[in-house]
Amino acid sequence: MPGADVRHGNLMAGLPARQAEEQIERLIDRPTVRIERIVSTGQASPPGFWYDQADDEFVVLLTGAARLRFEEGSPGLDLKPGDWVEIPAHVRHRVEWTQADPPTVWLAVHRGGA
Amino acid sequence: MPGADVRHGNLMAGLPARQAEEQIERLIDRPTVRIERIVSTGQASPPGFWYDQADDEFVVLLTGAARLRFEEGSPGLDLKPGDWVEIPAHVRHRVEWTQADPPTVWLAVHRGGA
Repeated sequence: MPGADVRHGNLMAGLPARQAEEQIERLIDRPTVRIERIVSTGQASPPGFWYDQADDEFVVLLTGAARLRFEEGSPGLDLKPGDWVEIPAHVRHRVEWTQADPPTVWLAVHRGGA
Repeated sequence: MPGADVRHGNLMAGLPARQAEEQIERLIDRPTVRIERIVSTGQASPPGFWYDQADDEFVVLLTGAARLRFEEGSPGLDLKPGDWVEIPAHVRHRVEWTQADPPTVWLAVHRGGA
């Protein structure tokens, strides 16, 4: 085992069954950087909703599948495992759909104050 | 296609064949956060070498396999796909071995100034 201050885990461990809401687990939470595991089981952004985030976000799809949509540009971006996207602050986007089973697992790195 | 300012790619694309050095591709490079794809094809840290980094590092192993070793603690940490490790600044560590074929792909998030 590594030293006591070395945290570790597995992003595929403890995946929830299908549920109403996305599950977000915060792995790193610092003033300038937040790293999250997000598990989607079929969720999508509500109709007409657009994310408009203050922080830059780098997101990787690890398993499953999803489609992002951007307000500027069309018709969308289909994501498969290994795909990453850099979404600058205030680039309006939405999640059109996510694969439910097996679940869709994302790693998101939110960067503020940089 | 998304708007012109939305960069995207796939972490498994364009994997190099076995080579002498690790391949490091910088995906995000900001004052406080650097995100890299690292491809190892059998490399390990030189005998007696320990990383002693000024920045905190969050690393995920995406494919392949590897073993990390920490100066404090033993005997090491075997990594499989999906495994993540948070290595605080100045926690001395080394890479004992990496799987060469298929290659070992890491995503590393280096955080400084936070």
